[in-house]
Amino acid sequence: MIGVTAERAYVLDHVEDLHADLDQWLRIPSVSADPGRAGDVRRSAEWLAAAFRRTGFPTVEVWETGGAPAVFAEWPAGDPAAPTVVVYGHHDVQPVDPEELWHTPPFEPTRRGEELFARGASDDKGQMLFHLLGLRAHLAATGRADPAVALRFLVEGEEESGSPHFADLLRSRRDRLRCDVVVVTDTGVFDRETPSTCTGMRGMVGCQVHFHGPDVDLHSGLFGGAVPNPLTALGRLVGALHDEEGRVQVPGFYDDVVPLTAVERASFARLPFDEARWLGEKAASRATAGEAGHSTLERIWARPTAEVNGMWGGYTGSGAKTIIPADAYAKLSFRLVSGQQPKAVAEGVRRFVAAHTPPGITAEVTFYGDGLTPCLTPVGHPALQALVSAMGRAFEREVLYSRNGGSGPEAALAEILDAPVVFLGVGLPDDRIHAPNERVVLPMLYKGAESAAYLWSELAALPPG
Amino acid sequence: MIGVTAERAYVLDHVEDLHADLDQWLRIPSVSADPGRAGDVRRSAEWLAAAFRRTGFPTVEVWETGGAPAVFAEWPAGDPAAPTVVVYGHHDVQPVDPEELWHTPPFEPTRRGEELFARGASDDKGQMLFHLLGLRAHLAATGRADPAVALRFLVEGEEESGSPHFADLLRSRRDRLRCDVVVVTDTGVFDRETPSTCTGMRGMVGCQVHFHGPDVDLHSGLFGGAVPNPLTALGRLVGALHDEEGRVQVPGFYDDVVPLTAVERASFARLPFDEARWLGEKAASRATAGEAGHSTLERIWARPTAEVNGMWGGYTGSGAKTIIPADAYAKLSFRLVSGQQPKAVAEGVRRFVAAHTPPGITAEVTFYGDGLTPCLTPVGHPALQALVSAMGRAFEREVLYSRNGGSGPEAALAEILDAPVVFLGVGLPDDRIHAPNERVVLPMLYKGAESAAYLWSELAALPPG
Repeated sequence: MIGVTAERAYVLDHVEDLHADLDQWLRIPSVSADPGRAGDVRRSAEWLAAAFRRTGFPTVEVWETGGAPAVFAEWPAGDPAAPTVVVYGHHDVQPVDPEELWHTPPFEPTRRGEELFARGASDDKGQMLFHLLGLRAHLAATGRADPAVALRFLVEGEEESGSPHFADLLRSRRDRLRCDVVVVTDTGVFDRETPSTCTGMRGMVGCQVHFHGPDVDLHSGLFGGAVPNPLTALGRLVGALHDEEGRVQVPGFYDDVVPLTAVERASFARLPFDEARWLGEKAASRATAGEAGHSTLERIWARPTAEVNGMWGGYTGSGAKTIIPADAYAKLSFRLVSGQQPKAVAEGVRRFVAAHTPPGITAEVTFYGDGLTPCLTPVGHPALQALVSAMGRAFEREVLYSRNGGSGPEAALAEILDAPVVFLGVGLPDDRIHAPNERVVLPMLYKGAESAAYLWSELAALPPG
Repeated sequence: MIGVTAERAYVLDHVEDLHADLDQWLRIPSVSADPGRAGDVRRSAEWLAAAFRRTGFPTVEVWETGGAPAVFAEWPAGDPAAPTVVVYGHHDVQPVDPEELWHTPPFEPTRRGEELFARGASDDKGQMLFHLLGLRAHLAATGRADPAVALRFLVEGEEESGSPHFADLLRSRRDRLRCDVVVVTDTGVFDRETPSTCTGMRGMVGCQVHFHGPDVDLHSGLFGGAVPNPLTALGRLVGALHDEEGRVQVPGFYDDVVPLTAVERASFARLPFDEARWLGEKAASRATAGEAGHSTLERIWARPTAEVNGMWGGYTGSGAKTIIPADAYAKLSFRLVSGQQPKAVAEGVRRFVAAHTPPGITAEVTFYGDGLTPCLTPVGHPALQALVSAMGRAFEREVLYSRNGGSGPEAALAEILDAPVVFLGVGLPDDRIHAPNERVVLPMLYKGAESAAYLWSELAALPPG
């Protein structure tokens, strides 16, 4: 194969190994949300531990947590001065219901052309397995006995259940997980023709606001118009949450926001984003809306937001009941971007609620935990440049920048391990993760393996620091 | 008794007749809301019909409705040119629960000093019975065989259940109910030392607003900040319902409002209204609020209002769920004052909702029926002046003006019978109607009887017109 690198040649020569691994692992129904599947989740961890050992990792451990076990696998670099990389992924999968919508059984991997159908094929077992092939390609192509960087895989078993024990695990195992960079492999590219990498995820602060007015529901004929109505007050608070330009009015909300760089804005704009199709998928909405001066991708990826997730109070049955209710409630959530601290935003929200609490109403704001810190790796960061270079070599295309508007365990990795996080993922938007008929496109896994093979060399070549 | 009118003398000489009637009628548990008491409601109607006959009414009928029966009793005037008066009240009573809070059984009338305890003692059986004594006093004191005005009593049996068949009854019996004035006896005076009469009641328009956004709840990490959120839109709508001065922002809302007269404003201001006590009763609220430039009594009696009675949408369970909900709902009610037409207000509400429906959201507004028209008898109206004169003679005090902020069957009386409505009621604010230990203060019923005795003469003396 003329012009083909040794890494690519190795990967393409060994895809059957990857297929065989997939066929075994995808048969284990490691649904972490189902307590009845706890044994399968453990079997999944043990299968993966054996696979790491088979690949040559000298240290492989199954780590217990308060819930499902995680798998840890470590392979030191040949050069003790080489950087250390933590690779993050997960071995648990989403539930399969409604099972009747699957065309083939979710735990019987079925291949059709380039596609392999099974629960977990893309999210995240397929992507974990490309790393094993990628590492073997890296060793074979570079003629090394040990990888160019020290590798520490951490594969958790509760990601699909909200990672309830993950932060605790990171804290208690921090010594074993020291690293220079974290590579997250649980995401994807923009589309098959457009390789991209995520530079950051949004953080989050969530709370419930309770407005209490009269001690009992009052007759609106006797009291209406003369006492404060908690629902009216709540409506005014929610109505004041954004200005006419869609900007969040919580005091100080934007003070610490790290603005989008021109490079990222330009990169977002080059992504072949079809807004109408995006709106139409899941019949999402009939229009876009949001902060003035920003594109839809910027709004969902790189700008902080305030959303009302729920609101209730008073009479909600059929027909009319003319009361002024005693109580009104709203659940608010704020997505944060780099620079914003959950604690400071929460303090701003408290002040905002206080400023919108009229006389005669008492307000209570309850936050859900401490919130999630946003994470962002600046586009100039050497580790990110190494990733972009590795993926660019594998895909033979320019790698564009994206972000992820959600909030996940990545924030804990960045914060607790105090390391930059980069994203090497090759899932596709139409892989139907979390839905019936999940699939993975096998050539994407080959590209992932090849990217990983290059990445370890690229990271090792970075100047220390 | 020097200086005592013949009417008062007759009433005070015959209070034992009133007490005996009360003792019988209050034992009949005519709870219209309880289907198991339908037989008792009918017994109550029959008892009252017999009492009317005993009093001398030549025509007494029990009128069937789609629900509980009403009682009709007619006594023509001696002078065929005399005005005709319809007297309205009801013979059904509120439920008694929680019964364990009653100090004496609710259907065993128990006297303690001036007070008589029983369900219905004040609302409305006691007040219906004072009319029988009052009419006998009128006849005896004036030496008439027939009353000075033609009297048509209409005593319904479903008032405590929302009068569901009352408007239909009025329409179908309109010929039998033609009149020059309606006297409503189902209300009270400001307090025992302050006789007052209601000049009007508020009307009402109620609706449900439904904002529909995406067809399914969306993940706020994937869509947040970039599509319209129905709850945010609803909050903005509710927040825009009043301006900073508490004025309702529905287009045209105040256009047709008949302003309070200086006489009524001055009269309201002279009522010994204790705002702190009013707020404290039922722990109603910790502060007043409302339309700038109006007192609390003006706000609850004589100004139109907009209230949110219920609101809901999205996730309302415990903890957080970061969605953008598909739907958001609010129940709104508008109290109307004289001049406002329910139809025109409903049209304004539709326009207001349309103006606050952002792109990407669809709005549906569902009104509960046609609404209730407000009713008001201007303070200069001769029938109202006759009432004030009659009550003033009985109470020997100036009678002040009040209003009622609620909305009831009185609107149907005014509208369908096309006659002015005046209010002769002697209940007290602390009679605990609708609550355990309802009572009536017997001397108030004597004052009511005496007022009625004068009223028929006063109305007969008015110039025709």
